[in-house]
Order: sequence, then structure tokens, then C-alpha cells
Amino acid sequence: MADSPSPSPRDRLIAATEAMLRESGMAGTGIKDVVARSGAPIGSLYHYFPNGKTQLVTESLERHAAKFPALVERFFDEKRPPAAAVRALFDNAADVFEEIGADKGCAVGAVSLDLGANDTVLQSACHAAFRDWAGLIEPRLPFSDRETRRSCSVMIIVALEGAFVLSRAAKSGDPFRDAGRWLSRMLAASSDTPPRRARKSKPRTKR
Amino acid sequence: MADSPSPSPRDRLIAATEAMLRESGMAGTGIKDVVARSGAPIGSLYHYFPNGKTQLVTESLERHAAKFPALVERFFDEKRPPAAAVRALFDNAADVFEEIGADKGCAVGAVSLDLGANDTVLQSACHAAFRDWAGLIEPRLPFSDRETRRSCSVMIIVALEGAFVLSRAAKSGDPFRDAGRWLSRMLAASSDTPPRRARKSKPRTKR
Repeated sequence: MADSPSPSPRDRLIAATEAMLRESGMAGTGIKDVVARSGAPIGSLYHYFPNGKTQLVTESLERHAAKFPALVERFFDEKRPPAAAVRALFDNAADVFEEIGADKGCAVGAVSLDLGANDTVLQSACHAAFRDWAGLIEPRLPFSDRETRRSCSVMIIVALEGAFVLSRAAKSGDPFRDAGRWLSRMLAASSDTPPRRARKSKPRTKR
Repeated sequence: MADSPSPSPRDRLIAATEAMLRESGMAGTGIKDVVARSGAPIGSLYHYFPNGKTQLVTESLERHAAKFPALVERFFDEKRPPAAAVRALFDNAADVFEEIGADKGCAVGAVSLDLGANDTVLQSACHAAFRDWAGLIEPRLPFSDRETRRSCSVMIIVALEGAFVLSRAAKSGDPFRDAGRWLSRMLAASSDTPPRRARKSKPRTKR
């Protein structure tokens, strides 16, 4: 059996950057350390990333962000009411956070808080990631009004990012579990569309 | 009239560090830049902070964290139901975030995501800040069960930190407004104790 091809130096540089951003943000992601961790030849960095660290970090954020759609697909499936889906998503995040060492945050969140005044390219990349993530969840939320769904999808991404912050400080996934519990209650109590496989009558919107 | 005494070099170093952590996390808080921004004599840093950057950042986080009790007192007053209090707190955070330039995050959140593997002192300082903040809100929440109040207070701090992350990326306070709206709905829908100035009957706990 053939092994899968080893990742290219370019892919290794991006993967190392993503990992280091998750571990300690821009503060812990020095170019020399990225190169050392990736095992890529030192000369390859500016060959593959002529715009340097900004390009490397931007592409690493895009790689990181591109993992989210599969998570949404996995948890917000047709059979699960959204309140249960969001709780399962957060409980899973808690478990994974702890399994991999209770120290890996979100690369996009870390860069967002580390942005310098001139980091407009990185700021746009962070903003795009959060907007896209919320946009994936928005159509799956149990509200007839689109603005209500949009606002709620932002709340869910806010909670996800905040849970990474508190979980990193606590070295425990419990903040994800607390957040998932409350988001789930919130959705169950506020829904104004019928659950897919339960009652057919339309409950009144609670305000 | 006498002017208030100017801050000591020690205070200026702490204030500069806090400001720089809010602007761009540990990544943007180099010791030389802190000294330059503070206007303190270069020799004063290791005089006042013999343990260097860790001590300086720890004390800056304590200074930052100590501002939260006054905010809680201001918004969670006796006359305001908790659902209205949390919305006012988040709407105020949105307004202040925008007024001061839409680029100042939370120093504790930024350090939490920038922690290196050996930053146990800073990690403890971040964890203590979040725990203390949640502890201030917990007794003011409208649930008879203490574990429910604890969990909900963590959710509120999670949302506050996550709102800083998304607001930094968006350069807009709107994520605070979305979060405040949903936290408020969540509290209003889940409360199992009577609002202070409204009905007297005790609604059933929703689960």
C-alpha cells in the first residue's frame, strides 16, 4: 500500500502556523519558530509566501475557518432539533478541547485580539471567518424572521469564541458545557417554528 | 486649585501595559514599547517589576479586572430586573467599544488566548479574573438553584469575552448588542424567581 503523499513544505508551513496560533496567538507565532516546527527549508517561507507573515497567517486562518462547515453539518443534521444540535456542538467542543490538552484555542479568535492598528488584511480575514460561520448556522435556526436568525447565529459564534477564552484560562472545557446548556435552553424557549419531528402547532413567539 | 498628583512611574507602566494588552494582546506588548508609552524612565521597569514582564502583565490584568465590580453594581441595581440589567450592560459595552475607537478588547481575554505553555502565573491570573467576575454576577441572577446561577453567570462572561473577539474583528459593537439581546431573552424566559417589582407568583422552572 502506498502511503499518502507527505504534505508539501507550503502545507507544512500553513499547518504549523495554524497550530501555533491556536496555542499562543500571534505572540507565540514567530516566523523562525514556524519554520522550525514545520520542518520546511528555511528558504521556502518567502518563496511560498512572498508577502511574509501576513500572508502566512491569513492562509492559516482560512485553513482553520474551512473546518467549521463540516462541524455544522455534523451537528445540525436533519434529525436533531437546533436546541439539541447546539448543545451537542458545544459538548463536543468541550470534550475535544480537553482531549487535545486543554490548551488549543481558536486561531481566528486569537488573531482577532492580537490585531495591530495596521493589520487590516488580518482583520478582514477574521471578520470574514466569523461572518461565514454565523452564515452557516443562520438558516438552521428555528425562527421565522431572518434578522432574528442572524442575530442568534452571531450569539452562537460569540459564545463559541468566548468559551475558548474562558476554557483556555480554566484549562477545562467546562465553559463550553455551560454555554451549550444555556444556548440550548435559549433556543428551546424562543423558537417560533415547529420542531421538525415533534408537534405541528406553531407556538407563539416569546419576546 | 491643586492638580491631582501625576501617576507614579509604576502606575504609568501598569496603565500602559493594560492599554497595549487591550489593543493587541501579548503580541503587541513589548517591554520597550511599554516603557516608551508610559514615559517612565527605562531603568524603572526592573526596579518596580523585578520579575519582569510576567509581573507587569499580571498586575495590569489585576488592574483591568478590578474595574468590573463597578460595572456590575451600575447595571445590576436593585430596581432593574436581571434580564434588563444584562442587556444594558452589553449595550453599554457596545457603545463604549465604538466610542473609544472600536479596537480595544479585553486585556484578560487577549492574554488568555496568547498564553504560552509555561505561563502558569498569567493563566492563573486570567482564570481568577473570570471566576471573580462570574462570582459577582451569580448572586444577582433570577434562579433559586445556585448551580443554575453559577452556570448562567459563566455564560454571561463567555458572551462578554466572545463579543470582544467578534467586535474586534468587525470593528463594530454590534456583536455585543446581539449577545445582550439574547442573554436578556434567555434570562426572561428561564427565570424561576419572581421579578423584583412585577408579579408575585412563582413561575415553574423551565427545563
